[in-house]
Amino acid sequence: MMKLGLFGYGVVGGGVGRIADGRDDMEVGRILVLPHEVDVDPRTVTNINDILTDESIDTVVEVMGGIHPAFEFVSSALKAGKNVVTANKALVAAYYKELIALAKENNVTFRCTAAVGGGIPWLVNLSRVRRVDTIESVWGIMNGTTNYILSSMTAQDVDFADVLKKAQELGYAEADPTADIDGHDIRRKLAISVGVAFDAAVEEANIPTFGIRNVTSADIQAFRNMGRTCKLLAYGQMTPDGVAAYVEPTIFTNDRLEASVGTNYNMISYKSNNAGIQSFYGQGAGRFPTAYNVVSDCLDIIAGEDSFYTDKAEPTALACGSVSHAYYVRTNVCDEFLSSITEEKGEGWVITAPVSVEKMHAWAQKQKEIDAGVFFAGIQ
Amino acid sequence: MMKLGLFGYGVVGGGVGRIADGRDDMEVGRILVLPHEVDVDPRTVTNINDILTDESIDTVVEVMGGIHPAFEFVSSALKAGKNVVTANKALVAAYYKELIALAKENNVTFRCTAAVGGGIPWLVNLSRVRRVDTIESVWGIMNGTTNYILSSMTAQDVDFADVLKKAQELGYAEADPTADIDGHDIRRKLAISVGVAFDAAVEEANIPTFGIRNVTSADIQAFRNMGRTCKLLAYGQMTPDGVAAYVEPTIFTNDRLEASVGTNYNMISYKSNNAGIQSFYGQGAGRFPTAYNVVSDCLDIIAGEDSFYTDKAEPTALACGSVSHAYYVRTNVCDEFLSSITEEKGEGWVITAPVSVEKMHAWAQKQKEIDAGVFFAGIQ
Repeated sequence: MMKLGLFGYGVVGGGVGRIADGRDDMEVGRILVLPHEVDVDPRTVTNINDILTDESIDTVVEVMGGIHPAFEFVSSALKAGKNVVTANKALVAAYYKELIALAKENNVTFRCTAAVGGGIPWLVNLSRVRRVDTIESVWGIMNGTTNYILSSMTAQDVDFADVLKKAQELGYAEADPTADIDGHDIRRKLAISVGVAFDAAVEEANIPTFGIRNVTSADIQAFRNMGRTCKLLAYGQMTPDGVAAYVEPTIFTNDRLEASVGTNYNMISYKSNNAGIQSFYGQGAGRFPTAYNVVSDCLDIIAGEDSFYTDKAEPTALACGSVSHAYYVRTNVCDEFLSSITEEKGEGWVITAPVSVEKMHAWAQKQKEIDAGVFFAGIQ
Repeated sequence: MMKLGLFGYGVVGGGVGRIADGRDDMEVGRILVLPHEVDVDPRTVTNINDILTDESIDTVVEVMGGIHPAFEFVSSALKAGKNVVTANKALVAAYYKELIALAKENNVTFRCTAAVGGGIPWLVNLSRVRRVDTIESVWGIMNGTTNYILSSMTAQDVDFADVLKKAQELGYAEADPTADIDGHDIRRKLAISVGVAFDAAVEEANIPTFGIRNVTSADIQAFRNMGRTCKLLAYGQMTPDGVAAYVEPTIFTNDRLEASVGTNYNMISYKSNNAGIQSFYGQGAGRFPTAYNVVSDCLDIIAGEDSFYTDKAEPTALACGSVSHAYYVRTNVCDEFLSSITEEKGEGWVITAPVSVEKMHAWAQKQKEIDAGVFFAGIQ
């Protein structure tokens, strides 16, 4: 019988508790909460040591969120000889290498399937294919909030601000939506995925990232006229010069699988040398889908699965100069660079010749200073 | 070091050999072939006993195809204490229960991930979700040949016969295409999937099945006018009356994920109580994708994975009377039954009110006697 200590008892933690309480191969021993939350369950404690020193607890489930003190708490749990399962993408993106090393050192297991793709079994399948294959690329719609916003704008011809407000009312978007709409959330999941796919330790902050804050209904109308659909995509690719990783809005022809990923769903894919392209679709967030993956990780530990997704993550400089494609660009201040790559002009927007991801992102960041509303999207 | 005995050395077997030869955790010991094939490799043998009595061989990979003598050969291997990995869907659909029981009895492992979905990690993920969740339904595009035919007809407005010929030239369709276009191949994969999803031992032959032999470019044009796309789908569903399982052409609105599954790709999905809908997309056949899943099964055995997908498969009567939906029906002989359920009439076709799967399939089988070209498709 696996005995769990939960760090946190919010949306996901409560879901894990509900599933675990219905099983006979695991039970929740203690739940670490803040002082004002002690009444939610008779098993709550407010001092982490009550879990760390409880020898009957073999596995900690960290679902408190945030980087600090989650990192210190998880580190203490690993040092106390407890397996750790987490759904915390911020923590994993920032400290994957350190946590894996600490788990190894203490002869325990660290798993984080729910940290990327919520309920989608993405990391376990990526890890599975890596045993046999070399991964060429990974890509995906990994953020449900932005997919909900873009899908709604595509279906209903509504403004970004109105859709964002509705997403906030539905609980799909946070009160401060920055992490989602500016791409920081999806960038974290990309950093973790690239680490597992390519043994690459990529600094989140170095990944060129452009979000959807500036997309307008006029942009969406232009895409519709082209027979295309816009999605926020994360890409990772092994190039002869190293790993390229970037996040950008992308316009797909309507017959592409990605174009049909609606509402707040996610779809994540890899291409590998033998298996080819394989895609995984499902709920990228939500109480029970995420809790499902957390409990599955616990069952993998019970089953003796002690592999780490990768323990070879090497610090990697990004090679985003090696990947080029055409872009849709809309700005009200055209400059020499944009003129030099323009192939086609529309009403207020241009289509460029293939240009490197590095150059386009660098240009757009600078362009924001003179045109705060600039928007671009890669063309696939 | 795992030592393999291969039964068969054709397309998939050769792929397994190529991948295994490049690894340092497994090696191919002996390869069972027919007498005229002995020159293809120095490791070939023509007598199965050379593999069964070779104590250094711990695992047999069966990729010879067909039911007999594959069943007898695999049974002998299990009785000789060897693990068995197979990609043979005909064998697994016919003898799953017997083979699982034999493996248990002899304390060895039987795995067959590649038998459904070729390179797609479908059965392993279905098995993974079942540890936590109750499956409500499974469905999918599980046959690449028919998907290639339907995709081509949708994209290019060409006749069934012409596309079939091209598919045969490309090697996507067999010289005798019956198993694919009449739905026998996909029905096998459904029988296996339903077994794993619901602990149900379903007789292949009892599954109501209607193929795409009769689809015309006029049908496809009618679907296009409705904003829909036709795919051959397999369905399994747990109903209050038991398991419903059936195979039928289905028309999806163009914004559905299934509508965008092109060429010879497959996509298979389940819906479960916690994880929700999850879909798996990839190559459903082909040398290296299929060999990838075979080798992955071998690695799972090395990793100590000794679970069976299900060892509780109980004989199950089908409950296809419990599932109803609307249908598109085209026949040149309208009868009382069809008139009684018609809701809308087009040029030569009708749309019905919701009618049970059992009734529609039974009617169409009888209708073939008076209208050999009758065609129908479920509306999703």
